[in-house]
Amino acid sequence: MQRSELERFISEDLGAWDDSSAIIPEINAKAVIISKEDCIISGLAEACEVFGYFGLVAEPLFDEGEFVPSGCEVLHVRGNARKILQSERLALNFLARMSGISTLTRECVLCARAANSNIRVACTRKTTPGFRLYEKKAVFLGGGDTHRFNLSDAVLIKDNHIKLIGLKECLSTARLQASFTKKIEVEVESLEDMLVAAENGADIIMFDNMPPEHVAMGIEQLLQRGLRSRVLLEASGGITLSNIGDYAATGVDVVSLGALTRNARWIDFSLEIEKGTI
Amino acid sequence: MQRSELERFISEDLGAWDDSSAIIPEINAKAVIISKEDCIISGLAEACEVFGYFGLVAEPLFDEGEFVPSGCEVLHVRGNARKILQSERLALNFLARMSGISTLTRECVLCARAANSNIRVACTRKTTPGFRLYEKKAVFLGGGDTHRFNLSDAVLIKDNHIKLIGLKECLSTARLQASFTKKIEVEVESLEDMLVAAENGADIIMFDNMPPEHVAMGIEQLLQRGLRSRVLLEASGGITLSNIGDYAATGVDVVSLGALTRNARWIDFSLEIEKGTI
Amino acid sequence: MQRSELERFISEDLGAWDDSSAIIPEINAKAVIISKEDCIISGLAEACEVFGYFGLVAEPLFDEGEFVPSGCEVLHVRGNARKILQSERLALNFLARMSGISTLTRECVLCARAANSNIRVACTRKTTPGFRLYEKKAVFLGGGDTHRFNLSDAVLIKDNHIKLIGLKECLSTARLQASFTKKIEVEVESLEDMLVAAENGADIIMFDNMPPEHVAMGIEQLLQRGLRSRVLLEASGGITLSNIGDYAATGVDVVSLGALTRNARWIDFSLEIEKGTI
Amino acid sequence: MQRSELERFISEDLGAWDDSSAIIPEINAKAVIISKEDCIISGLAEACEVFGYFGLVAEPLFDEGEFVPSGCEVLHVRGNARKILQSERLALNFLARMSGISTLTRECVLCARAANSNIRVACTRKTTPGFRLYEKKAVFLGGGDTHRFNLSDAVLIKDNHIKLIGLKECLSTARLQASFTKKIEVEVESLEDMLVAAENGADIIMFDNMPPEHVAMGIEQLLQRGLRSRVLLEASGGITLSNIGDYAATGVDVVSLGALTRNARWIDFSLEIEKGTI
Amino acid sequence: MQRSELERFISEDLGAWDDSSAIIPEINAKAVIISKEDCIISGLAEACEVFGYFGLVAEPLFDEGEFVPSGCEVLHVRGNARKILQSERLALNFLARMSGISTLTRECVLCARAANSNIRVACTRKTTPGFRLYEKKAVFLGGGDTHRFNLSDAVLIKDNHIKLIGLKECLSTARLQASFTKKIEVEVESLEDMLVAAENGADIIMFDNMPPEHVAMGIEQLLQRGLRSRVLLEASGGITLSNIGDYAATGVDVVSLGALTRNARWIDFSLEIEKGTI
Amino acid sequence: MQRSELERFISEDLGAWDDSSAIIPEINAKAVIISKEDCIISGLAEACEVFGYFGLVAEPLFDEGEFVPSGCEVLHVRGNARKILQSERLALNFLARMSGISTLTRECVLCARAANSNIRVACTRKTTPGFRLYEKKAVFLGGGDTHRFNLSDAVLIKDNHIKLIGLKECLSTARLQASFTKKIEVEVESLEDMLVAAENGADIIMFDNMPPEHVAMGIEQLLQRGLRSRVLLEASGGITLSNIGDYAATGVDVVSLGALTRNARWIDFSLEIEKGTI
Repeated sequence: MQRSELERFISEDLGAWDDSSAIIPEINAKAVIISKEDCIISGLAEACEVFGYFGLVAEPLFDEGEFVPSGCEVLHVRGNARKILQSERLALNFLARMSGISTLTRECVLCARAANSNIRVACTRKTTPGFRLYEKKAVFLGGGDTHRFNLSDAVLIKDNHIKLIGLKECLSTARLQASFTKKIEVEVESLEDMLVAAENGADIIMFDNMPPEHVAMGIEQLLQRGLRSRVLLEASGGITLSNIGDYAATGVDVVSLGALTRNARWIDFSLEIEKGTI
Repeated sequence: MQRSELERFISEDLGAWDDSSAIIPEINAKAVIISKEDCIISGLAEACEVFGYFGLVAEPLFDEGEFVPSGCEVLHVRGNARKILQSERLALNFLARMSGISTLTRECVLCARAANSNIRVACTRKTTPGFRLYEKKAVFLGGGDTHRFNLSDAVLIKDNHIKLIGLKECLSTARLQASFTKKIEVEVESLEDMLVAAENGADIIMFDNMPPEHVAMGIEQLLQRGLRSRVLLEASGGITLSNIGDYAATGVDVVSLGALTRNARWIDFSLEIEKGTI
Repeated sequence: MQRSELERFISEDLGAWDDSSAIIPEINAKAVIISKEDCIISGLAEACEVFGYFGLVAEPLFDEGEFVPSGCEVLHVRGNARKILQSERLALNFLARMSGISTLTRECVLCARAANSNIRVACTRKTTPGFRLYEKKAVFLGGGDTHRFNLSDAVLIKDNHIKLIGLKECLSTARLQASFTKKIEVEVESLEDMLVAAENGADIIMFDNMPPEHVAMGIEQLLQRGLRSRVLLEASGGITLSNIGDYAATGVDVVSLGALTRNARWIDFSLEIEKGTI
Repeated sequence: MQRSELERFISEDLGAWDDSSAIIPEINAKAVIISKEDCIISGLAEACEVFGYFGLVAEPLFDEGEFVPSGCEVLHVRGNARKILQSERLALNFLARMSGISTLTRECVLCARAANSNIRVACTRKTTPGFRLYEKKAVFLGGGDTHRFNLSDAVLIKDNHIKLIGLKECLSTARLQASFTKKIEVEVESLEDMLVAAENGADIIMFDNMPPEHVAMGIEQLLQRGLRSRVLLEASGGITLSNIGDYAATGVDVVSLGALTRNARWIDFSLEIEKGTI
Repeated sequence: MQRSELERFISEDLGAWDDSSAIIPEINAKAVIISKEDCIISGLAEACEVFGYFGLVAEPLFDEGEFVPSGCEVLHVRGNARKILQSERLALNFLARMSGISTLTRECVLCARAANSNIRVACTRKTTPGFRLYEKKAVFLGGGDTHRFNLSDAVLIKDNHIKLIGLKECLSTARLQASFTKKIEVEVESLEDMLVAAENGADIIMFDNMPPEHVAMGIEQLLQRGLRSRVLLEASGGITLSNIGDYAATGVDVVSLGALTRNARWIDFSLEIEKGTI
Repeated sequence: MQRSELERFISEDLGAWDDSSAIIPEINAKAVIISKEDCIISGLAEACEVFGYFGLVAEPLFDEGEFVPSGCEVLHVRGNARKILQSERLALNFLARMSGISTLTRECVLCARAANSNIRVACTRKTTPGFRLYEKKAVFLGGGDTHRFNLSDAVLIKDNHIKLIGLKECLSTARLQASFTKKIEVEVESLEDMLVAAENGADIIMFDNMPPEHVAMGIEQLLQRGLRSRVLLEASGGITLSNIGDYAATGVDVVSLGALTRNARWIDFSLEIEKGTI
């Protein structure tokens, strides 16, 4: 984590003058963080960076991306007691938010792979402003694909682009202007557009908000025209844990869900301190 | 929003070199943002700041904190088409995340006030790192109380403080060291501690993870000892929409929920663009 | 100190390309900082951070807040001679400015406590832009109270608020809108307003620019009405070393002085270097 | 002022969530800033920048560097009442600190020029960390010389340099290594060193902590040896309003005083608001 | 340009206290920037941002990417004379550096396209630290391809990757771990590796430091095996204006040159001011 | 290097999410940087800072400013293989750009000193925005003079200043307003202006774009009038390796060349990695 970013996060939680932690004298203590729910854990690296900033010694007890049952100790930390209290909330917020996303991602991956063992489960750019890196990392640690990180990654031609200048124009301009190092993806809402995209150089086609049967029909058409191997296929829009298997079964290469970052619940962790020589 | 913060948010979503938006020529367009679900709306001010940064003219169609039915236009924006595409995702992320929190807050407030018309519903510091201001603001716009913003606000003596040096020591040190401008709050897990806190200068007592009946018993004891009027009372821990009324009915002054910021779902909004002279 | 802040301070004093220190070869040296006046010392922690940034080893010889007679060695530093020269001025500026404030604060505290042993002596927000943290810390180390750090701390209703919407309206709005975690303070210029404040939920009342005898009359009125125990009382405006005892003797809980940060003289320190193996 | 710097100053005084100003509704108001003491005014430009940041319209009524009698209106501001309250303290802090320095500088300049009409009165690098630009600007507006802004300005060989490698070595290294665009100044504590400096290429010689009569003797020696016209002469150390004339009378070109920035009292200003259509 | 970046660039050239421009009184002036050499111009947008920051009105007289003969006026600017002097050098540095790159890029593009009308000419990551955006933009405006902006763009497997874990392992890991939205490029030093790459999922193959005849042989082999259409082909290493045609003639899709950003000479521009009412 | 600056440089080359380096497992490696051309090396300190940021151990094998033949190992680095790959390009860019400048500077210095053994060779402010410190440092390490770092260094009166208010007015204002610690330099285009400058207090006179014979005539005139010893003389404008000797032979004190930073070619370095226990 860049130092300036870490300092911003810390400053947000400390404020200008912390009279709360100051009631504790300059003694040493140790503490343990405990999971209060089953989860796929992530955010341990960030929690350790937070503790390290305050001069504390932190030791994670799991690898990120591992399954952790409820009630487990996941991290030990020791050092100045006041500093433990100052870093506690930020460290827990990283763990709770990131593990929530990793856990939901893992559920989606398992569910999708049951129907299609090669499928990728990807997130979107629907992330909390300023916190995307950690949310995408949590998806990755849960077994998901980070998809485009920002607008500068692969070109994505969306409905609004098409509405403005038409799909063919979008594709020809993109091929001309964008660096050859980038893939070009098209979001389509009809099988007609799917064919146009496949025949005009799209590297990836995203079926947007289509029911699984339409997606399957689309794939069938691409196969018949010998276009299937030229493109990666992604289904998106309205996909949840309950229908992800249906989409995976259509034979697309990727399903993507805003829900991974939008609707993941936070996992509950608590930090318990004890005084003591260390 | 501080300019440097806005630029960080924008930079996160634009990346280094945006080839995606660049496929659109330098034309003007207008667009509308539409709610896809009923909600209490917030984040309109932030969305407008984002659009304004890109030289676009944005006009919100609701006041923040208002109820918006599904399907409503909530914001108009017009200007350079490419800039609309560049700002779309960030503006929507503000709206979706903040309105989700405001909506859940309003539900909790209505539910709690049905049982106790004077009660406050507060959030906690369980917020996304770097985004606390907007999450707390969304709580406020939903009718909630922002509680402590950071460790420098009111002194809060928690279980870990007490474990280290004992409650009385915590209180006497806090009264001595902390500025007279700050309230002192104590988190108690027993009625014994509640009485110690009330008799030793706590301004606020938080019942932590106690069932409503224990909270009610505690209040009764304070009344009997003539201590009730000296302190504000807050219930916290495990409170959700389904039990918030029970807690409110105990007569506490405040109920606080990490869930307001942890478990709020995002509200769905979409931006639809159309080419046109403006 | 946040790294980015420390680097700003250092950059201010180094400039773009330091040809001055570069005339010294890459040798080691040790140096000592000596007080040239009696003082209550503060800023040692900051001085050590400055030296540490340059890779020097610094050892403070006093605790912050201690009395230091003129002529004492207060800090030893050793390492690269060129780096000592580069850090000298900034380290001394911290020491001189902060110790000046701590010294004046201690004088005021001693003087006020001679008249009222429980009284607090507080500073204000009249601080050098960008340097408030260190000036308030110096007040604290001198035995003073930091008062509100910024506008987000306790609500303070001042003359200009009252002029705009009236005192009662201010108080009722503040009680409604501000978080329950914050105290509400009112600045009053008359005893009528004092009573209105005390009866309408003010937690703290500040007598602004009143002579001690008026303050005493106000306290008498509050006692008669049984309101004294409900509020903290602060006297402010025109208080100096020469009249602080009179204000303290009135029985207020706090006296506050802009002078602590505005009129404190700098304490003189000097750094003396010597070449040598270390 | 760089935007990022202005935002830092503002953030310091606003904090995270300002409940204080929020008690005022969204109304317009006008306000006036009034001097409470005679002064040479400076900081008006900075005050206007602060107000401008908040969308307020500010109009200064004096030029910076002008004499302002006690009781004068010095600046008008109008716009959103809440914003006026939010910007008040920072604007006043700039005015009060800077005008204090300009006023003391002007007194010193007048006093010194009475004895020597060509003399310059300069400040030093003894400034508040992070605020040097404004303190040096206040000196300039008071009629003083800003001296070196930082270590990268003119090379200054001080006692500690000399102690490490000797004066001649310092001078020869400086002439060799430092850019030809920079002057070389030497701080001397004896007339022997003065002569060494003058004969070895110093552009400026500073008499450090010498009584005026020694300074005069030194000048006499330089004249006798025909070296006077080669160097600028500066007196420094222990100079105050009471002896500045004696130093000026010696015939030095410059007197410099840390006191300009260390011991300047703040000038008192107040902001008075009134509601009203504007 | 992000405001904070612009302020950094400006601060670098202004320093702490500009006594140079201050010798000019507060008068208005107009100025013109003139090309002293034939060039493809770029940096006009940046120059205008610089002038705009200082409150000046700037009007570019060419589109970026246009050919400009020596001696042409390329930009008019008017406003405060002192501000024109303060912004001159930074604006010229943008123009000179960027136009130099655009000009060399255009020469390379013309030369390469004479041999192969569809070829792209790309730059590399060999750019000045902190200035990559502007150097890549200059390449783009000269008609070149920006290639990877940073390590997060398309995966590029280089010699050092291969040395560590072997080419096949690199490719299989990249296909597994990297987001499906990214292309995978392999840098090969032999035709054997070329075939391995083409058969194992590389999207782009870069011939590194091979003579044109080897490149041509490689392409021939790919054609024979029916692999040519699956991959984009790039030649890199030691390519200059004098041999770029030979590489283009081989039939590769892209030639890339570090020289575009490393060896481009700066174009000479001058700014001429004149006093005058504007 | 300030940490925030280093993090900006690193962030520029890493981007948001580096999938390229991630294909390498968490193994250790060592690597060596090799010069591909003869050069005067600089940038080693910066390369080491970059490697150090990533937790790598770097050891430079030459002093900065030394001559390095083609083919030499110049720096060893070891540690996490992935981190070596992440830091490689930035470290090489520092070395390549800075060594290119140092090499050209050394050539110019040798050539000029052959004609005039005391002459200084200086660069200008024609530097890459944001990278001036490193370019000037490279000049210094090559044996050159850094000249003015920014507008706040010595006052430089240029053609545009003179055009606005006339040379005499410029000089008298500069002497009055600028700090006594700064030199005043004048850029002259005629010998008439040269005399005016010399007689009105200029410390340095720059002959701008004059042929060597005119410069020599100017020096002759100054000698005749006894003004030569009062001023430093600089020649500038159109000076290159091929005519620098002619200018040096005129007897000026300094020749300055924008070419040192504008036209220096980058030196080629490569980093070669090998797996291995370290």
